[in-house]
Amino acid sequence: MNAEIICIGTELLLGHIVNTNTSFLSQKLAEAGIDVYHHIAVGDNHARLIAAFRQALSRADIVITSGGLGPTVDDITIETLASLIGRKLILNKMLLKDVKEYFISKKIKFPKESIRQAYIPEGVKWVHNNVGTAPGIIAEYADKVIICLPGPPREIEPMFVKELVPYLKKRLAANWVIKSRTIKIAGSAESQVDGKVRDLLNLKPPTTVGIYAKLGQVDLKIMSKARSDRKANIAISKIERKIRARFKDHIFGCDDETLEGAVGEILTAKKKTIAFAESCTGGLVSNRITNVGGSSRYFKMAVVAYSNTIKENILGVSWALLTKYGAVSRQVALEMAKGIKFLACVDIAVSVTGIAGPTGATKYKPVGLVYVALVTGKKQIVKEFRFKGSREEVKFQASQVALDLIRRNI
Amino acid sequence: MNAEIICIGTELLLGHIVNTNTSFLSQKLAEAGIDVYHHIAVGDNHARLIAAFRQALSRADIVITSGGLGPTVDDITIETLASLIGRKLILNKMLLKDVKEYFISKKIKFPKESIRQAYIPEGVKWVHNNVGTAPGIIAEYADKVIICLPGPPREIEPMFVKELVPYLKKRLAANWVIKSRTIKIAGSAESQVDGKVRDLLNLKPPTTVGIYAKLGQVDLKIMSKARSDRKANIAISKIERKIRARFKDHIFGCDDETLEGAVGEILTAKKKTIAFAESCTGGLVSNRITNVGGSSRYFKMAVVAYSNTIKENILGVSWALLTKYGAVSRQVALEMAKGIKFLACVDIAVSVTGIAGPTGATKYKPVGLVYVALVTGKKQIVKEFRFKGSREEVKFQASQVALDLIRRNI
Repeated sequence: MNAEIICIGTELLLGHIVNTNTSFLSQKLAEAGIDVYHHIAVGDNHARLIAAFRQALSRADIVITSGGLGPTVDDITIETLASLIGRKLILNKMLLKDVKEYFISKKIKFPKESIRQAYIPEGVKWVHNNVGTAPGIIAEYADKVIICLPGPPREIEPMFVKELVPYLKKRLAANWVIKSRTIKIAGSAESQVDGKVRDLLNLKPPTTVGIYAKLGQVDLKIMSKARSDRKANIAISKIERKIRARFKDHIFGCDDETLEGAVGEILTAKKKTIAFAESCTGGLVSNRITNVGGSSRYFKMAVVAYSNTIKENILGVSWALLTKYGAVSRQVALEMAKGIKFLACVDIAVSVTGIAGPTGATKYKPVGLVYVALVTGKKQIVKEFRFKGSREEVKFQASQVALDLIRRNI
Repeated sequence: MNAEIICIGTELLLGHIVNTNTSFLSQKLAEAGIDVYHHIAVGDNHARLIAAFRQALSRADIVITSGGLGPTVDDITIETLASLIGRKLILNKMLLKDVKEYFISKKIKFPKESIRQAYIPEGVKWVHNNVGTAPGIIAEYADKVIICLPGPPREIEPMFVKELVPYLKKRLAANWVIKSRTIKIAGSAESQVDGKVRDLLNLKPPTTVGIYAKLGQVDLKIMSKARSDRKANIAISKIERKIRARFKDHIFGCDDETLEGAVGEILTAKKKTIAFAESCTGGLVSNRITNVGGSSRYFKMAVVAYSNTIKENILGVSWALLTKYGAVSRQVALEMAKGIKFLACVDIAVSVTGIAGPTGATKYKPVGLVYVALVTGKKQIVKEFRFKGSREEVKFQASQVALDLIRRNI
């Protein structure tokens, strides 16, 4: 069983809005065991919409549209559907009542143009919209199903989950589920990861592995299609064990887990406290750490020291070191970490100093040069990195290696 | 002249990622006066990709793909392109040098599988990727153009703007241009903005206005289609003047300008220095300020004080105030700002304290309660806010009002 998604709206083709409906609908369909092979976006244009409908019906069992259900003349989805399936538009009194109740609940006078939203093709079903006035439409047509949804994500999402997923599951008696698990790796380039899992990337369905490179992170996504959740999970776990054996502590988490969350869990479990001295990252490391709920248990303090004077006066870095080696150096990184450790009275202190760019480079110190230091009661580590990219990308990659250094050293 | 966009990747069809490339590319094409009638997404599947290519070539002058250019066996775009246009894949030595230089600059050993990225169809042009290894490809095929771009937005965006927009403009000498200008407003709710520009939102083409609500910000986008840049700009400026007269200093910038950038410009112009004492924002305010290149001219220091002890010991907030009013209070916000002003020796000091959630609320202090204080040589301001949303959303809104408070008070 497969579905095709058609998003309707000239604003999509002009790039005015990012289309989040396709990813939402695709996720829900995958979870229900329904494959999706194509997403389409077309404008509010009758001829092109009809053509898209016909093509989708020729290759999919289920066609789902979003958009074009509003009360204005721009909104042509319902008329186009009626002409496609050869049925008349008729006023549905129950639906009219439903639309009117929406306005009553909002204490707004019923606008006469909204009567248009109660005209639907003869014989189709409609689904109540909790959040807006445009109903969802289900048209059963030969052995296919066409579902028309409104455009706004906040209207689609409750309607699709509550009404349409159960409808589709029931109608199709889909016996397949697709499950996935994403294994997240820090501290390795895509090509290094790729080289170690080439065999797994070549796996054929029902269980496959994909590789996704992100800034300072590589994800391996295992997917499995099976007759039950249990069978899919078993197949995924088998691959996950292989991946874990190959990457060991380079893996920091799964699925929705974040690097800052992983660091937080370790700090909580080990009952350790932490503080940061940030120069080039400008507060990003502590911003990320504090995105985790409950981080005040372990995170105590950060100093963003954006000048040599502050590095000297607040963090206690000696002026001699600053002038001899420069603010971006192993020596200063280490002194910054020691300084914040003393100031905050914590178990672990981490510092970051570097050149985020686009200016600030010198003959021997290019943009992207970053030093990260970690100091505990027992350890003193300083690492050098060279990153590429924009100012924000350098900052992000520096925060990523700082967090990863903590994760691996406590 | 019209273009069609094909996004390639099974991860799109599974809904694993939101497709932002289509909106980015569509915007840039619209600005160049090139219409877009269809967006397509297909998986990493040779047969379906060939079919999508053929259909796109049958109805568009320009076909732009994104995705499937990586070094792995999943990446089939280039092979599919070669078979589509009937040309052999050959090793391009210049391109191989370019790809190798990427790894040299990163100090990573050249992974042998990356040699695959230097094989391109005979006779096509390639475009350097500043951020990654996959080049952009331009294939001129009969009277059509096929452009293949990498998948990651951060790789596409600079390449498309710097190399491909000029290429397309030159080749096509498009007669229509669409120009847009986005006016950015802080400190007003969407409904307030909407109420003041209802007449403009109803404008009909060629010049229209759209409203886009974001977290802590409302954007008004003016679009105009005309025969020349000049004519479009005149039409836009006429509307812009009306909007500026209605919103005055609620407007902080245009287009790519950011609130932190606007604050930076004012601080630079007035030669003032600044420091932050952050509690609930956890470093986000200083992270945003330091996202602006050259911010070290005005930004000196921040202390993220995540415990009462740090607020007392480092910022000098009296223990009596902390116990009497609590850390989230007008009184403590003001003392934090005074403390960081003293510590950093700056002209302007700003503090933020609040409850980001999801835990930490008390009977009288709900999640989302935030105090922001600003202290200069002459002024002392404290403001109370009540935000809604997740932890990260509360943090962001708090950083937004902190930056806006600076902008309006210096």
